[in-house]
Amino acid sequence: MNENSDQSPVRLTARGKKTRTRIVAAAADLMRVQGVGGTTLDDVMVASGVSKSQLYRHFEDKNALVRAVVTHVGEFVITRETNMLGKVSTLAGLRRWRDSLVKANALRHGMYGCALGALAGEVSDHDVVARGMLDQLFRAWQRLISEALERMQRAGALNESADTARLAVGFLASLQGGYLLAQTARDVEPMAIAIDVALAHIESYATSDRAAS
Amino acid sequence: MNENSDQSPVRLTARGKKTRTRIVAAAADLMRVQGVGGTTLDDVMVASGVSKSQLYRHFEDKNALVRAVVTHVGEFVITRETNMLGKVSTLAGLRRWRDSLVKANALRHGMYGCALGALAGEVSDHDVVARGMLDQLFRAWQRLISEALERMQRAGALNESADTARLAVGFLASLQGGYLLAQTARDVEPMAIAIDVALAHIESYATSDRAAS
Repeated sequence: MNENSDQSPVRLTARGKKTRTRIVAAAADLMRVQGVGGTTLDDVMVASGVSKSQLYRHFEDKNALVRAVVTHVGEFVITRETNMLGKVSTLAGLRRWRDSLVKANALRHGMYGCALGALAGEVSDHDVVARGMLDQLFRAWQRLISEALERMQRAGALNESADTARLAVGFLASLQGGYLLAQTARDVEPMAIAIDVALAHIESYATSDRAAS
Repeated sequence: MNENSDQSPVRLTARGKKTRTRIVAAAADLMRVQGVGGTTLDDVMVASGVSKSQLYRHFEDKNALVRAVVTHVGEFVITRETNMLGKVSTLAGLRRWRDSLVKANALRHGMYGCALGALAGEVSDHDVVARGMLDQLFRAWQRLISEALERMQRAGALNESADTARLAVGFLASLQGGYLLAQTARDVEPMAIAIDVALAHIESYATSDRAAS
């Protein structure tokens, strides 16, 4: 196993890069719908319209392709979360983020769960390199949450006793577990409840709510 | 697809039942370690020491076997949770339950996640019958949690404002998400933190804690 097998070789031409991107995008779509275990390299060849020799020029084996998919999905999720959470500094902002995630998941009736969480569940026990990449991605996501909570704390919206790093782990776990319950129920409701319960916990550290209670 | 394909035909002899049990136990072990997608019927034949004709006499296809594994794992998890949660009526009892789950997961360094959650993530989008079974199992688990919270409420340990059904969904989501983060980190810590944050939220409804704050 090569730790860098998910990286493009530097010698790729513009056309080679385009082919590689097409393969990874097709693989990511297939793995999201069929699962990693249910997706073969033959499926990816057909879906991306590349030949076997082209596919193997870019990816030595399925593990290498799965790692490229993890990178691709990770970039998508972390970019989305950075855009949505990067400037949040109020409880209202956190609720808008919640509404956006719940709405997107409701459109699919919970199907497929979280793109990153689904990959993590399927590959973590089978590929130590992919597991490490997924762990870093979850940590980056946690950091985006804890930084939002820290901004709220600095602005006086959350009191000093809130341990933002721990709350962020708990929040991401609620979100991931909510995605899984919604996927199993084929209904967004348990995910919405899970996030709302997690939000209620964060609100219990709100300075104004405290004062009012 | 036959809705009852996970059921033993009634005509099974004692010996037939034993063979069936051996197949399902071997399949459950393999699927836990290799994933559902990574486990073939050939793997199951080798691991259980049965012939192809014996295997097909009990299970018409892989879906039928997966459903039998869901039933087997579900019985295990719900029995364990009934034993551990069925009489809990205090916060201390809830913390002992937490300690037991965290300790078991720490021994594996988070590997494999939750037996039920891992199956749910892998099969929910691919088999409507198995998805329905897993949904019922999660609901049974939620009910065990909400009943424990109701006993605490009746005993005066939680105040009346605690919505036990919603808190139970949130708690199970925290637990499932915690299992996934721990599996990805190969470290029990995020799971322990996720449950502790969920417990802290439940404690915020504790009548004595409220009075003291």
